[in-house]
Parts: sequence; structure tokens; C-alpha cells
Amino acid sequence: MALTTELPQRVPADGLPHRVTIYEVGPRDGLQNESGIVPVEVKAEFVERLADAGLTTLETTSFVHPKWVPQLADAADLLERVERRAGVDYPVLVPNERGLDRALQAGVEHVAIFASATETFAGKNLNRTLDEQFGMFEPVVTRARAEGLRVRGYVSMAFGDPWEGAVDPAQVAGVGRRLVEMGCGQLSLGDTIGTGTAGHVDAVIDACVAAGVGVDTLAVHFHDTYGQALANTLAALRRGVTTVDASAGGLGGCPYAESATGNLATEDLVWMLDGLGIAHGADLAKLVDTSAWMAAALGRPSPSRVVRALSG
Amino acid sequence: MALTTELPQRVPADGLPHRVTIYEVGPRDGLQNESGIVPVEVKAEFVERLADAGLTTLETTSFVHPKWVPQLADAADLLERVERRAGVDYPVLVPNERGLDRALQAGVEHVAIFASATETFAGKNLNRTLDEQFGMFEPVVTRARAEGLRVRGYVSMAFGDPWEGAVDPAQVAGVGRRLVEMGCGQLSLGDTIGTGTAGHVDAVIDACVAAGVGVDTLAVHFHDTYGQALANTLAALRRGVTTVDASAGGLGGCPYAESATGNLATEDLVWMLDGLGIAHGADLAKLVDTSAWMAAALGRPSPSRVVRALSG
Repeated sequence: MALTTELPQRVPADGLPHRVTIYEVGPRDGLQNESGIVPVEVKAEFVERLADAGLTTLETTSFVHPKWVPQLADAADLLERVERRAGVDYPVLVPNERGLDRALQAGVEHVAIFASATETFAGKNLNRTLDEQFGMFEPVVTRARAEGLRVRGYVSMAFGDPWEGAVDPAQVAGVGRRLVEMGCGQLSLGDTIGTGTAGHVDAVIDACVAAGVGVDTLAVHFHDTYGQALANTLAALRRGVTTVDASAGGLGGCPYAESATGNLATEDLVWMLDGLGIAHGADLAKLVDTSAWMAAALGRPSPSRVVRALSG
Repeated sequence: MALTTELPQRVPADGLPHRVTIYEVGPRDGLQNESGIVPVEVKAEFVERLADAGLTTLETTSFVHPKWVPQLADAADLLERVERRAGVDYPVLVPNERGLDRALQAGVEHVAIFASATETFAGKNLNRTLDEQFGMFEPVVTRARAEGLRVRGYVSMAFGDPWEGAVDPAQVAGVGRRLVEMGCGQLSLGDTIGTGTAGHVDAVIDACVAAGVGVDTLAVHFHDTYGQALANTLAALRRGVTTVDASAGGLGGCPYAESATGNLATEDLVWMLDGLGIAHGADLAKLVDTSAWMAAALGRPSPSRVVRALSG
């Protein structure tokens, strides 16, 4: 259905920020979860189109070992193909010092590390205890900072853990605080399994602030597995968070259900921000075109509601 | 993925109601939009299973003329098959006096009328002007009330109109007020095309209250076409609304995109309410089972995120 440009109606709400930074994770978090391997030329075009659409923070790839994530084995090649533009930030994920070496060789200016809020996931994902993970990340962050890089710290399983169940917000805040003390300039609070709800978002943010982590240091990273991602984002905005992770087209589908969603879809976020009159700099029509193109390349419909509604 | 019963974590938020009434519209709003005809035995089982799952308000069918909505031509037959239980409310939609006659013959205690917030949709859906629609509904509401029935008034296109674009909240409130004065005990503010966002929800509710319609008279009815339904519900709860329309499994798919969503999915709402510690009386596992069963009967996947995640 073609809609007039009057929709969504722009109706600001009280108590929300005036501007939000969209931290786009589609090329990394989205594509690393695709079962097939996307050709590097397609990835490069994806990144360029996202920049054309006005997104200014594009997590481009990960220097994880190809044995673990073969989907992103082309990280260095991709970064060579992407024309890095002034005013656009191209962070990459680095799991360890070897990954940082490769990132530095690729000339990146911003890296992200992926920590766990829970003991069990630290064991399964990093083969470390909750406490040992800091010893693993410390040399990565220290060296990245010494090289003049900015560092983001993901705090994964921050709203629930598939093995442990509930996760104490104070424990999440403790992990976050250690990462900030280590040198992370931004924390991304990750609802990796998508189980969190709005009051829980308040509680985790409040716990971080109580632990001395400023709300301007926080980003939120919601997966939409249980349909909560946008409502949770609204809660986080009300708490003063101004950086929101999202994935163009909602890429990042769970392997167990065709076209089930992974990350919050960038387009669904942009629709809300446009309605609320919150500035973000992205062009919805260009995003929708890009995600429709990528969905065709992947051979499956986009999980984004907005992409489906506007590209049908 | 099987989750522990600890998830979602129960973390109440400030400023929200303690209890919400879920007004289930799946059998009517959901199934009237299905392209195929669902057998009446399947519909009856659907309604019974929804009651078994603890839902207490089930909009069961519509006495619209079968020429317009052949999917619900079995309205009288369905109501005969459903064993109406104490403590469960079975409202039905009636478009006009003839529909009310049929509803009265079927022994219903609660009817709903479907008004328009906009001039254009009143013309297209009712063949009336915005103002003339009240003359059409007045005898229906008056007679229903005289017969001791409760009456709900839908205010459709309350957050945007596909032909007119923007809709003034004051106009929505004016329509709502006329319906209340006429005898409607509840208003359901309908985002029929799903374009509204959270600040807009605040504005429409505030306009209704300013027009003298108490917030306890209001329900919200969101379609998830642009992914906004749950975030908008959260906004409405913060404004004090305690009746939320939802459709089991997110039934009510738009005709233009396979498994695109219609109404807010009851299960996604229940997940949020459970996380927020807001009482509602429904059993999530039974709802998921019911919606998975209905999705199989309809031959397409449920658009509900929760149903997909928990029934995969």
C-alpha cells in the first residue's frame, strides 16, 4: 500500500532524546548468522548502500577466526573494497589479539569486543570463566587504545541466558563497569536471546548507572525473538540512552525458524523515530530499497515489518 | 529453543497498571481477513481453546452481511456451537440493525459497532459521511442498550488514513465522544493501517480525555504493519489504558504479503505483560499451542514472534 509522506504522523513524546545514533550491525551481526556465504562484492555493495542511506555507524565485519564464523572469512577483503567515507564510522568486531592485529592491518579506527554477562556463556563462547574473560580482553583493549582506536564492549546475555535463565542486573552492571574501566568507551547491552521486557530494560540501565557507568556510555542491542525489541528500545530511550543497535531488514535470523527475526530491524526503528520526531539522519526509502535488494540476494523475505509493508 | 520458566524475568516498571484485560479479536478480526474460509468446527474449537487458555473476552464473530465478509457467514452457527462459559465475554460485531437482530437472536450480551475517524473511510466503508455515520449507528446502539446489551465502539483509522494521510487527534476524540454519548461503554482506538507511533498514541489518548472520555473507557487496537504495535501498547499502558486488543498468533495478515502481520499478537503482548508483572489471566503455553494449531490449519506460519520461537 502506498502511503502519503504524511505518515507516520510526527508526534513527539515527552521525555525522549532529540537525536539518536543508529549503530548498524547488519553487515556483521546480520550476515554472520546467515547459513549461506554472501559474496564479498554483495557485502561491499550492502555497506555502501547503507552509507548512501545516511547511516553513519556501520559495524562492517568481524576478525573472528574463519573456522568459527566462515561467513565473515572475507573481513580484510571486504574492508579493502569498502570506500571509507568521512563522517562514517566502520567499527569491526575483534575476538582477541590476533583479530586486533588483522584489524590494525586493515586500518580500522574502531573495534568492538564481545564479552559475556554470564558464567555459562563465557564458558561456552570464550572458554573462560566470567572473571577470566577480562584477562583475555585486557591486552586487546589496552593495545587498541594505545593505537588510538575507540573500543566498544558488548555485554551479551544481559537480559537472560538460555542455560542459566535469569541474570542479575547488578552482575551485568559489574561486567560493564570492568569493561569501561579497561578502556571501553561504549557498552552495548545485548539481549542476545531476546527475552527481556521493558521494565527489565529500565532495571539493567539503572544498575549500570548505579555502578558508575554514565547513560551516555550505553547502547542497547535487542533481538526481536519474542517481539519485544522495539518496545524495549522505547523504554531505553525514556531512560536517556541515545545509541541503538539495529540491523537493516532485521537480518540475523535464528537458524531454527525460517524468517524468524534476529536483530531489531533498522527500518522499524526508523519508522518509530520518524514518528517521534527524533533525528537520526537515515533515509527510510533508501533503507527499504537496500533491505529488499538484500532479501532478494539472500533468497528469503525480510523479517522487517516496514520492509515488507513498503516493498511489497 | 526451550527456555527456563524464569524467562522472561519479571521486572515491573513504574507507572503501569497492575492488571490488563486482553480483548481477543482473533476469531473475528483475524479470521475475517483470511483469504480462505475456515470451517465452522475449526472456529468453534479455536474459541474454546482460547477460553481454555484463560482469555475472558473473545470477540467471536461478526453479523456483517455474508456478501461483504463471506469468511464470517457462519456467525449464527458458530455461536450455537460455542459453549458460552460463565466469566467469559463473547462480544460480536454488528454493522447495522439487521446485524443486531441476528445477534439478539443468537443471545449475545455484548456487541461492537465499527465507526470511522475519517471522512474518506466513512465513505468507503459505510457509504456515509463522517457525520452521517452517527445517524446509522444511533438506532443500533439505542436498541442494543434497551435490550440490556453492552456496546463497544471501534474508532477505526484513528492514527492515520491510507487516503487522507494524517488524522487530527481532536477529530478522533470528537468521534469517540459522540459514540460514548450515544451509549458505547468502551471505545477501541484503532490503528487500522498500523502507521502510528508512541507519541501519537499519547496524543490521541490525551485528546480523548480532554474531550471528556475517561481513560478507563478506552481500549487500544494496534495493527503491526510497521512493527509498532507492542511499543504503542506500552505507551498506552503508561497513559493508563487497561484494555488491549490482540489477536492470537497475530492473525489478520494483510493480503499483499504472505505472513505479514495484522493485529498485535496476543502471545507477544502476554510475553511483555508477564515480564512487566502485569496480571492478565492467560496461559502463554496454551496460547502458543492454540496458535500453532491454527497456523497449521491455515497452512501458513504464525506472524507472532513468540509463537515462532516457542513452537519451532
